[in-house]
Amino acid sequence: VSPEILDLVRRDAARIYAGKERSKHVMPQESINQLLVRLAKEGKRVLRLKGGDPFIFGRGGEEIETLASHGIPFQVVPGITAATGAASYAGIPLTHRDYAQSCVFVTGHLKDGSVDLDWLMLARPNQTIVVYMGLLGLSELCRQLIAHGLPAATSAAIIQQGTTHKQRVLTGTLQTLPGLTAAARLTPPTLIIVGEVVKLHGKLAWFEPQRDVDAADITMGISSGSE
Amino acid sequence: VSPEILDLVRRDAARIYAGKERSKHVMPQESINQLLVRLAKEGKRVLRLKGGDPFIFGRGGEEIETLASHGIPFQVVPGITAATGAASYAGIPLTHRDYAQSCVFVTGHLKDGSVDLDWLMLARPNQTIVVYMGLLGLSELCRQLIAHGLPAATSAAIIQQGTTHKQRVLTGTLQTLPGLTAAARLTPPTLIIVGEVVKLHGKLAWFEPQRDVDAADITMGISSGSE
Repeated sequence: VSPEILDLVRRDAARIYAGKERSKHVMPQESINQLLVRLAKEGKRVLRLKGGDPFIFGRGGEEIETLASHGIPFQVVPGITAATGAASYAGIPLTHRDYAQSCVFVTGHLKDGSVDLDWLMLARPNQTIVVYMGLLGLSELCRQLIAHGLPAATSAAIIQQGTTHKQRVLTGTLQTLPGLTAAARLTPPTLIIVGEVVKLHGKLAWFEPQRDVDAADITMGISSGSE
Repeated sequence: VSPEILDLVRRDAARIYAGKERSKHVMPQESINQLLVRLAKEGKRVLRLKGGDPFIFGRGGEEIETLASHGIPFQVVPGITAATGAASYAGIPLTHRDYAQSCVFVTGHLKDGSVDLDWLMLARPNQTIVVYMGLLGLSELCRQLIAHGLPAATSAAIIQQGTTHKQRVLTGTLQTLPGLTAAARLTPPTLIIVGEVVKLHGKLAWFEPQRDVDAADITMGISSGSE
C-alpha cells in the first residue's frame, strides 16, 4: 500500500505492519487472523488494509472466517485487484470482443521448483490468462502452456510494478518472453498476461511513467504562474 | 451508475446517457465510439463513465482503440468489476486456499437460444466460475457444466443487484439453482458464482440490505441525541 494511501489513515490510529514478501513473511497468516480477533475483542475498531482485492488471492476469506468463528462483526470493502489495475495502466483489455471472451486469474507461485496449475484448463484459445506472482515460474509457465497446446507465438506480457511510476511493460510471445524478462532484470511484484489482447498494448499503451511525472511538473509550473 | 455517484459529477458538465440494457441498446457501441471521437475533436474533455471495470466485459478496449486511431489522448481508470463487488457483498471469496486456486470470468449471454462457452475449460475442479449476465442462460449453464463433468452437487449462487440495497443472494447447487431462481423471480442484473467457495456464504454473509438501512437510522438517532 503506497505512502499516499497510508497518509489518508486517521492520525490517531495505531499502525501494525503485516505485509508479506516472497520468502519473508513478516507475520504468518494465522498470526494475522488471531491478531484481528484479539484487537477486536479488546474493543478496538480494526481496519485490515491490503493492496488489491481481499477476495482475489488476498486471503480475505480466511481472515473473516476467523472473525465469524469468534462472532466478531465485519464488513468487506472490495478493491482494484492487480489484474485490473495493471491491465488498465498497461493498455491491455482483459476481455475484447475480437480476442478474448473470458479471462482467468491464477497464481504462479513455485512449489518445489515447479508451477502447479491446471494446464489443460489454461491452454485454451480465446481467453486471457492473468498470472499473479509468476516471475520466478515464468519459464515453466510458458513451456507448459506450449506443451499443452497453445501456439508458441501466442502473445504474452509481463508488467512490473503496474500502476506505479516504476511500471515497466515487456511484451513478446510464450517463446520469447522468458528471455526478454531475464535480459531486462525485472523484479517482483509482477503480473503476467497471456493472450491475443496483449497485441493491443502497442496501440493502447497510454501511461508513460516518466513522461507522466514531467507532465505533472509542467502543469504545476503553469498553475503557479497564472493563478 | 448510481445517482450517488452521478451526483459527484461537476455541475456544469453536459450529460449524455449511453447505457445499455438487454435488448434495449440506447446507443449502439459503434455510435458511442464515434461520439467520443466527435466530442474530443470539438475540443471537449470527455469522461466515459461506466459501472464496473472498462476492461472486463466493458468494451473499453474498443472505445480506446477508436480514440487511438484518431490520435486522441486518453487515460483509463480501473474500476470494481461486478464479480469483485458482488462477491464482497455476498461474502463469497473468489479464491480460497482450501477451495479454489483460480477464478474465471465469462459472460452467459444467450446466442440463438444457447450459451456459447468453452465447457471443457469451465468444468474443472478447484476453480471459481463467475458468469456475468447469465440469468437467461442459467439452466443451460448448469446443465452443460454437469454434462461436462462437474458434480450436480457443486455449489452455486446467483446474486441480483449485488452491492445495492436491493441485493438478493440465492445459493444452491448446479442441480437446484435454476429452480430456486425461477421460484424467486430474480431479475437482471445478476451475477452467477459456481464453485465450492459458495459454501462460505452461509458463514461469511455480512451485508444485509434491509438491516443495513435500519442500522444507519439507529446510528443517526444516537448521534443526534448524544453529540
